[in-house]
Amino acid sequence: MINTLEKIHYISDANITAPIGFHADGQHVGLKHKSKDLGWIFSEVPAAVAGVFTTNQVQAAPVQLNKQTIKNGQLQAIIVNSGNANAVTGKIGLTHAKIMQATAAEQLNIPPHLVGVASTGIIGQILPINKVVNGIQQLHVDGDAHGFAHAIMTTDTSEKAITIQSEIDGDLITMSGVAKGSGMIHPNMATMLGFITTDANISSTMLQQALSEDIDTSFNQITIDGDTSTNDMVLVLANGLASNTQIKAASAAYNQFKTMLHTVTTALAIAIANDGEGATKLITVTVSHANNALDARLIAKKVVGSSLVKTAMFGKDPNWGRIIAAIGAADVQIDPDIIDITINHFFVMKNGAPVTFDTTAMANSLSQKNIDIEINLHQGAASGQAWGSDLTYDYVKINALYTT
Amino acid sequence: MINTLEKIHYISDANITAPIGFHADGQHVGLKHKSKDLGWIFSEVPAAVAGVFTTNQVQAAPVQLNKQTIKNGQLQAIIVNSGNANAVTGKIGLTHAKIMQATAAEQLNIPPHLVGVASTGIIGQILPINKVVNGIQQLHVDGDAHGFAHAIMTTDTSEKAITIQSEIDGDLITMSGVAKGSGMIHPNMATMLGFITTDANISSTMLQQALSEDIDTSFNQITIDGDTSTNDMVLVLANGLASNTQIKAASAAYNQFKTMLHTVTTALAIAIANDGEGATKLITVTVSHANNALDARLIAKKVVGSSLVKTAMFGKDPNWGRIIAAIGAADVQIDPDIIDITINHFFVMKNGAPVTFDTTAMANSLSQKNIDIEINLHQGAASGQAWGSDLTYDYVKINALYTT
Repeated sequence: MINTLEKIHYISDANITAPIGFHADGQHVGLKHKSKDLGWIFSEVPAAVAGVFTTNQVQAAPVQLNKQTIKNGQLQAIIVNSGNANAVTGKIGLTHAKIMQATAAEQLNIPPHLVGVASTGIIGQILPINKVVNGIQQLHVDGDAHGFAHAIMTTDTSEKAITIQSEIDGDLITMSGVAKGSGMIHPNMATMLGFITTDANISSTMLQQALSEDIDTSFNQITIDGDTSTNDMVLVLANGLASNTQIKAASAAYNQFKTMLHTVTTALAIAIANDGEGATKLITVTVSHANNALDARLIAKKVVGSSLVKTAMFGKDPNWGRIIAAIGAADVQIDPDIIDITINHFFVMKNGAPVTFDTTAMANSLSQKNIDIEINLHQGAASGQAWGSDLTYDYVKINALYTT
Repeated sequence: MINTLEKIHYISDANITAPIGFHADGQHVGLKHKSKDLGWIFSEVPAAVAGVFTTNQVQAAPVQLNKQTIKNGQLQAIIVNSGNANAVTGKIGLTHAKIMQATAAEQLNIPPHLVGVASTGIIGQILPINKVVNGIQQLHVDGDAHGFAHAIMTTDTSEKAITIQSEIDGDLITMSGVAKGSGMIHPNMATMLGFITTDANISSTMLQQALSEDIDTSFNQITIDGDTSTNDMVLVLANGLASNTQIKAASAAYNQFKTMLHTVTTALAIAIANDGEGATKLITVTVSHANNALDARLIAKKVVGSSLVKTAMFGKDPNWGRIIAAIGAADVQIDPDIIDITINHFFVMKNGAPVTFDTTAMANSLSQKNIDIEINLHQGAASGQAWGSDLTYDYVKINALYTT
């Protein structure tokens, strides 16, 4: 998909409530020690919904519930808590998720089947449902939209949000996204929650198709630590209040919608990688001239997921041997003797052999926050990217001390 | 295979030269700053050989060379250097490996096709071949056998060796093994070198079969960091000087030989996991009641390879939610609702639900070096194990600073 960036306008005050008819709130209700831990998003009218969920076989209660709820193709609200994942909590977990759903529905005066539920936090502890129920009663429809972005955070250090605008068929469309997640981020979405709102008018079938097609090149291409969560989900609500002609099939309008969606999902995915637990670097791996896009993505993700590459980048060490070793370990047929590798645009390997580079200039370059690794396979015409963080003392610290 | 441990005797002075007719040496020749970096093993007569090699598509020059050399089924010597992997060094790398082979052959007065070559260390730097050639001329046939075990080490903190004896058909058989490897240890053998000597009389065909069958339950079940090396290999030399009737087919004698081999390979594999870079813990994961042994091994390895499980164990934190999340992310069909998990024999999860445990007793238990995680899938009758280390500040330190 060509990213028609010239038609996309970034709005500086990124806000999940920027699209017409959306409202949100986020509050502290006592699930976490001090910070905000409960929030909701509400649309004035039922919205078309699309969702993608973790591939982990162990699925948190809210994931199980949402998969059922969104089958009708509509949602009007999403209630989210942090501080507790409501995962691996036995049968009571699903009961708790349903109580969250019903309580939010009652408070918003809408049917429960229009309410999605999400949880994130520690696995295997029973959700303190009384705090959640009481907390929901403290939420407002016209509340603190930035508070929502904060209420879904766990070890995240910053709010992750984007708002863009573009035209579809001459109508102004607004799309916003918020996300959380900085650990257990791997293969398929991992402790990651993403919520996207738009006032575009699109059928739920085409919305789901757009999201499903997009995910493999955005959220599924980030990795922090190779662990896959029980709670991941991305939900998109499209409430149609921009009044464009409904997108019902593949078309120019659909392509423009997908471009907008990809802009939002990629920005959120990179924001998550950038805020990886303990990260000091954002590592972008670009694989070009692969036989196909899947090959390119697999190799990019293998490299960005290598603990040895990640520690090398933390150490500002251009140890490209670890990069080629990771390439060779990916499940993709390659010819090591024709591969070129650059780190921050310095060639380190050409035609499979070492290249001398300016070590001082390289060292300066590796002191920057952004590391670009480019791999030219010299096989075909396809390319792909993946994003990740370095592996640092602080990653170990954060994760050695998380529950206790 | 039933491990008939009662028939295996462990020899306290583990030594690669314990089997009849083997000699070894290890010296410092200047490839590393101070420590030993070149060594060889020599058998008085040509020995049957078996080998297994890295599955990485990027294969170091000595790996490429050995695959050719051992096709004749015999080796009489192995020359090994550390400090430089001779990997991704272009065409000159293979030339250098052949020079190592020829120089050692000349010095030992045997044909080059009876000499195996191995290298380990930094990837992508040209091997200083003059130092190697001069160094080979300093090696002795009756040299320092423990020196050999040290000469193959990189970031290893201790020599890894084992010697056992047992009887096959009434003849006393001795078998020894040495190994190195503490980083880039994953799926398939990873920066790991293993050399096993025995005076057993066995055909090279049966020797290869025994090794190939064994490797999936020993060396391939350890993981330190998920990275797969370009240089891994395990070579077994069986010189027949114990004069037992040659093992030529599946038989009681072959089974006993396999039991001996498994004792050696498992001990070396666990020693490697125990010495994982920066490790403070040896983590053993045992999966029982799986539908088949492969399923059990896959899950065991997924759990022991999880960065979040590894950091939790470093933090002495019984965060079993990360264990069940890793189980669910393995590519094996499971039923989360019937799984039991224990950590150091304390139940933490039963029938897929949390279990209350004595947190003080658990905390004391997690202060020990050895962590045992047991997972009962309640599906079938098969079991499997995997071994790994925790993920610590020192792992990051070692790998952030390795080349520079």
